[in-house]
Amino acid sequence: MTKFVLRGSPPFAEHDYRSRISRVVGQVAEAGLDGLLVAPGPDLRWLLGHRAVSADGLFTMLVLRPGTPPVLLVPEQDRAAAKATPGASCCEIVAWDGETGPYDGTARFLPAGGRYGISDSAWSVHVLGLQAAVPRSTYWALGEVLPLLRAVKDEAEVGCLSAAGAAVDAVYREIAGLRFTGKREHEIAAALADLLREFGHERVEVTTVGAGPNGAKPHHEPGAREIGPGDVVVLGFGGLLCGYGSATTRTVVVGEPSAEARVAHEVVRAAQRAAFEAVTPGLPCAELDRVARAVVEEAGYGPYAGRRTGHGIGVSTAEPPYLVAGECQPLLPGMCLSLGLGIHLPDRFGARVEDVVLVTEHGGESLNSTNRGLLVVG
Amino acid sequence: MTKFVLRGSPPFAEHDYRSRISRVVGQVAEAGLDGLLVAPGPDLRWLLGHRAVSADGLFTMLVLRPGTPPVLLVPEQDRAAAKATPGASCCEIVAWDGETGPYDGTARFLPAGGRYGISDSAWSVHVLGLQAAVPRSTYWALGEVLPLLRAVKDEAEVGCLSAAGAAVDAVYREIAGLRFTGKREHEIAAALADLLREFGHERVEVTTVGAGPNGAKPHHEPGAREIGPGDVVVLGFGGLLCGYGSATTRTVVVGEPSAEARVAHEVVRAAQRAAFEAVTPGLPCAELDRVARAVVEEAGYGPYAGRRTGHGIGVSTAEPPYLVAGECQPLLPGMCLSLGLGIHLPDRFGARVEDVVLVTEHGGESLNSTNRGLLVVG
Repeated sequence: MTKFVLRGSPPFAEHDYRSRISRVVGQVAEAGLDGLLVAPGPDLRWLLGHRAVSADGLFTMLVLRPGTPPVLLVPEQDRAAAKATPGASCCEIVAWDGETGPYDGTARFLPAGGRYGISDSAWSVHVLGLQAAVPRSTYWALGEVLPLLRAVKDEAEVGCLSAAGAAVDAVYREIAGLRFTGKREHEIAAALADLLREFGHERVEVTTVGAGPNGAKPHHEPGAREIGPGDVVVLGFGGLLCGYGSATTRTVVVGEPSAEARVAHEVVRAAQRAAFEAVTPGLPCAELDRVARAVVEEAGYGPYAGRRTGHGIGVSTAEPPYLVAGECQPLLPGMCLSLGLGIHLPDRFGARVEDVVLVTEHGGESLNSTNRGLLVVG
Repeated sequence: MTKFVLRGSPPFAEHDYRSRISRVVGQVAEAGLDGLLVAPGPDLRWLLGHRAVSADGLFTMLVLRPGTPPVLLVPEQDRAAAKATPGASCCEIVAWDGETGPYDGTARFLPAGGRYGISDSAWSVHVLGLQAAVPRSTYWALGEVLPLLRAVKDEAEVGCLSAAGAAVDAVYREIAGLRFTGKREHEIAAALADLLREFGHERVEVTTVGAGPNGAKPHHEPGAREIGPGDVVVLGFGGLLCGYGSATTRTVVVGEPSAEARVAHEVVRAAQRAAFEAVTPGLPCAELDRVARAVVEEAGYGPYAGRRTGHGIGVSTAEPPYLVAGECQPLLPGMCLSLGLGIHLPDRFGARVEDVVLVTEHGGESLNSTNRGLLVVG
């Protein structure tokens, strides 16, 4: 089976990480902050390629301050793994002392009275520890002060997202040939997970299988429901390939669809198409949501539409910008978006079509290319 | 294939959650706090059975305050899922308003000037938001002020942990019959994951496969290394079954073991046995680590031993108490511990034996019963 991988592995090298760090440090200064504290997660993967964290919550933090070299603080047990990280040479690696704990050790890199951004997802125990250790320091959530840190992708990043898109398309082509009748949702979900891995994903993040009424639950976990004739089944799947995300949603039906299923599906397909065609640099994110929602509302499905039309995708499968009412952020060339607005008809079924779309100078470019129709399966 | 499940599902009912909440509120008052803020994660699962969180980081918080009814704050989109949660009737469910955000909405439940405990893993963005919204409020990490919240298990909880232990034992018996030669680590890891699910785990958390030198890396991710004759392979696996954790480690060898592998394995087995036999209520946790480590040191492997001999296990697979030097907490009947001390011989191999052990009035009781010897596989 073909794996979708990129030539040359890993795709990013020291100079990529150095350039990302330098851009971010510039943004930190511009935002009037004295530093940025980056916890394990997508930002740290993006800035250093660092993913080796031995235990959730054990203090690991990249300290970026304008005018001083970057420092990565890690627990002693992770020192070797940190040194082996692709961007290790871009920062000093300091293991904090198990006796005195991490906060006093970090405090020497954080001037008193400083204003610091910190990853939204950094554990509370750590920000509370730093507040106590660094006199008069104040902290601001990174997602509020620098939401678009990773939103614009460079060419190599788009290459990774394209490879992930091609892989997830291959997954759908395999799944479309599967017999659904008599299978349970979680069996289809397991097949999706296996295929995502077989086609090169190193991490499976989403395997949504919502059959019949379950398709109408936006956050349904695949369960024991047996899929039967007439069931409309929403399939959402994706993960990480070479560190970058895939996310696609297609809707299938077992045997001939009802007229109602046909209509609802045509509406979500048209809504997705309208949003895709509207993609253009400078357009506020909220506009994409408005355009898709207008199609759904005009067809009378307004009350059953999802709450947003998508979000950014990169080293995480959901990140800013969000395509939602009120989001004024303009689209920029290089942004990659998961794009699609679902319909959820309570106690009946759901329908959704979702692709990853690159914003280019000239409009949108889809990184997924499988058939978006309501596919009839056996 | 037999699934290991418990009679009567779900195993816990409203009165369990009510009693847990009431015990915790008592501890909050005793600790001199005005309230406790519990974020999604093991504590919230334990207190309410609540696991339905639609997106990481979207504010969800249980507010427990002595003298007032518990309140669960959720995003509007999770309101229905929260109401369906097993412990829903034990608290008021309040959806925060998407316009004004979660912090002002939560502030009306948190008196100004209050001292609040908050889950270690609550996102920083939320504790920063609450600090800004509630005048003169101060926050303390839950793990520091109330580390043993869930450490002592009741009978029903021990029943769940036993079922998880029996399931993971069945997994090992299947794996032991597998041909290892020519397989890659990640293939064995996938087999472990499949078996964990087949035997009833709803969540796979650990599938460590460390062959040859990889077994010497404490946090090795199963990779493409092909397993060959003479390889010592460390297998660590576990997850959640009926919401409670399993965790076991066994070491196998492909074909006849070298004298060195035999000796090293006998040492970790003896260390684990010594710690198990030492389990008794009142003993400080550090003692179990000292006892196991003494065996390893006496055999000359001291410098290669892991950094701790285990930790608690319950609705999470790693939680306080920690069996580590300096931990004075005495063992209490009802605590459940993952117990075992590994040896990591850099560039050669690793060896480890680990079981889940219940602390009873009379000593330790192992919830795993598979052979602890160095198993020869094909």
